[in-house]
Amino acid sequence: MSIKQITGARCTLCGHVSEAAPETTVCPKCGGILDIEYDYDYIKSKLNKYELMDREEPSMWRYLEFLPVEGVGRTPRLRVGGSPLYKAEHLAEAIGLTGSLWIKDDGQNPTASLKDRASAMAVVKAEEAGKTSIACSSTGNAASSLAGNAAAAGFSTFIFVPSRAPKGKVAQLQMFGAKVILVDGSYEDTFALSAKAIEHYGWYNRNAAINPYLMEGKKTVSLEIAEQLHFQMPDYVAVSVGDGCTIAGVWKGFKDLFAAGFISRLPRLISVQAEGCCPINTAAAQHTLEWTPQEENTLADSIAVGVPRNPIKALRAIEESNGVTVNVSDEEILAAMRVLGRTQGVFAEPAGATGTAGLKKAVETGLIEKSASVVTLVTGNGLKDVANAIKAAGEPLVLPPDMDRLRDVLG
Amino acid sequence: MSIKQITGARCTLCGHVSEAAPETTVCPKCGGILDIEYDYDYIKSKLNKYELMDREEPSMWRYLEFLPVEGVGRTPRLRVGGSPLYKAEHLAEAIGLTGSLWIKDDGQNPTASLKDRASAMAVVKAEEAGKTSIACSSTGNAASSLAGNAAAAGFSTFIFVPSRAPKGKVAQLQMFGAKVILVDGSYEDTFALSAKAIEHYGWYNRNAAINPYLMEGKKTVSLEIAEQLHFQMPDYVAVSVGDGCTIAGVWKGFKDLFAAGFISRLPRLISVQAEGCCPINTAAAQHTLEWTPQEENTLADSIAVGVPRNPIKALRAIEESNGVTVNVSDEEILAAMRVLGRTQGVFAEPAGATGTAGLKKAVETGLIEKSASVVTLVTGNGLKDVANAIKAAGEPLVLPPDMDRLRDVLG
Repeated sequence: MSIKQITGARCTLCGHVSEAAPETTVCPKCGGILDIEYDYDYIKSKLNKYELMDREEPSMWRYLEFLPVEGVGRTPRLRVGGSPLYKAEHLAEAIGLTGSLWIKDDGQNPTASLKDRASAMAVVKAEEAGKTSIACSSTGNAASSLAGNAAAAGFSTFIFVPSRAPKGKVAQLQMFGAKVILVDGSYEDTFALSAKAIEHYGWYNRNAAINPYLMEGKKTVSLEIAEQLHFQMPDYVAVSVGDGCTIAGVWKGFKDLFAAGFISRLPRLISVQAEGCCPINTAAAQHTLEWTPQEENTLADSIAVGVPRNPIKALRAIEESNGVTVNVSDEEILAAMRVLGRTQGVFAEPAGATGTAGLKKAVETGLIEKSASVVTLVTGNGLKDVANAIKAAGEPLVLPPDMDRLRDVLG
Repeated sequence: MSIKQITGARCTLCGHVSEAAPETTVCPKCGGILDIEYDYDYIKSKLNKYELMDREEPSMWRYLEFLPVEGVGRTPRLRVGGSPLYKAEHLAEAIGLTGSLWIKDDGQNPTASLKDRASAMAVVKAEEAGKTSIACSSTGNAASSLAGNAAAAGFSTFIFVPSRAPKGKVAQLQMFGAKVILVDGSYEDTFALSAKAIEHYGWYNRNAAINPYLMEGKKTVSLEIAEQLHFQMPDYVAVSVGDGCTIAGVWKGFKDLFAAGFISRLPRLISVQAEGCCPINTAAAQHTLEWTPQEENTLADSIAVGVPRNPIKALRAIEESNGVTVNVSDEEILAAMRVLGRTQGVFAEPAGATGTAGLKKAVETGLIEKSASVVTLVTGNGLKDVANAIKAAGEPLVLPPDMDRLRDVLG
């Protein structure tokens, strides 16, 4: 199979370019993470932005020419992408921004996180590779999105999670019919067992650190943001950062559009991590690719990644975009959850609100100008983590059924 | 203000037609629930189905001519509606249906339930009525959807819930900044206090049993189903039933399209209730409007309504459609959650899967023909009720990090 818009897969470490096959994982020379490269002249010859705007397809697959696939496969699929971009005037006012602000609510995906974009891509590539079973090792949104998207396609999934995984997330996996293997050991033990099993059974490998196509799915969030803004770019895009795959995907999407002439300038990234776990921002602030592992001290579990799996792509993205780094406390994350809910009716999980927490701090500390135009990305729905929502939201008023008492309280 | 497509509000009890003002609640003559009536010739003069299909608006407001509003108001709003309709071949096979089957996944709304359609309407009507505060009394999806949609618009909400309400749902309300009043008493006490407070403070009243506009919001789910099927109607639409407002709204949508000439036949309704709480189905099976209160013995909390608030509209809808009634056990509801998740990647809360449980039973018992074409409506997302998801999904495999042991188990 030859996918005409792809020219190859370039290693992020040694620069070697290899062929991009459906089952391609790391660099055949050095084991580095690969980056899919495109022929932008070919893309331009097939699509312009006005043709794109006339398309009816509402999902991420409306951007087919920018994606590393020949088609969307023959299996049924969930409707991934097409999430709303809200103009957020109340939020802008609340955080002191006088410029335009938008919220991209990717918690509105089928399994309620941005990870659906990567998992939908994994299912299509697995089908191209002739596989019907897909595996990954994860405790969070990547696992549940893979399980959901694979179930729709009729593929089986094998998900390895450490036995300490929260019951609710395990229940989601079970509900989608994944074969869930709870490993009585550390996350490292779990990952190692999954790697052996994937090799032994020949399952398709859905791991963002291994599989270069997943970022290509994630980048569709940027293609959508650009189109929803009629290709007029904002000054900044605020993104929460864990293992680095999402911010790298966000940047790839904008760069692709720029290279193909769909947009005339690139936004700057605001990279937001939790104070208790910020290895990427620490390195980025020093403009180096040399990062140091950290402990994982934050309640935002989806971005509690002390040993990021995609640091190089993330660090290059922040550097290339002339980006800004901000670290926020757990209290600032909970406050961002509240302000998103109260001013805009958007309910985010902690990691999903972290970009907004960083944006608020960047405005307050003068890191970015108050008049800037910004898109803040919400990566996951708050219903995924009700315990922390309760922590953020506070206790309600309890009253007897008595009108006089109510009047005493409400005035 | 005059809304040209509306001719008035007819009482479902005494038939009296009154003017439909934004703040209209029950019949001024007898206190009965009202039904908004339309001038279908006017609607036809303004819109045909081909013009509709060319519209870009992706939300429920694309059907403006069929709705009891002049416009969508000036306040910001969440993107409600436009939920996916999935062709569900794997599910059809699993339940023994040889005809075409589709899932309408309304758990994909902003606050994760179909109730967003009603709450979005309530916000627009509140604005028309010149109110900036909206109140309701509820413990479930109606409350959280009102809180979310009102927050986006910048309106304040007052939500009265009995103090036994689950913490997670209360947290959602708090997150959206609702003034939550936990009433230390029964649901009746709670409702009574809210009624007094609404009168005293002059808040806009969002109660499906009182406010005739809410059903008009809910009916947009049928307008979408019809358009997504290119106006070719299925034989049946399966709907879970609690207080009766949703099935009545579903039917109103199809009747409107029929009256305006957009569809040439009406589907039959499959009305599904829980065995432990089925007052509407009990009356419907006897073709009478005389229903008897029942206890509320089901884990599907959203449809555990022993004293339905909208029985007449629901019973008339089932009768007019030559409908089918099915009651299902809690075990059948949990099984439907599993089969939806495993065959199609759709995660439903118990009440959200109840329609599908009833469809399965209707096929198995020969109540409907195996070759029928059916749409099954999923009304809410499973992330709303993780405890019952765990109940449905079973326990995963626990293993030491040992490849030999894994091979023993997986083969």
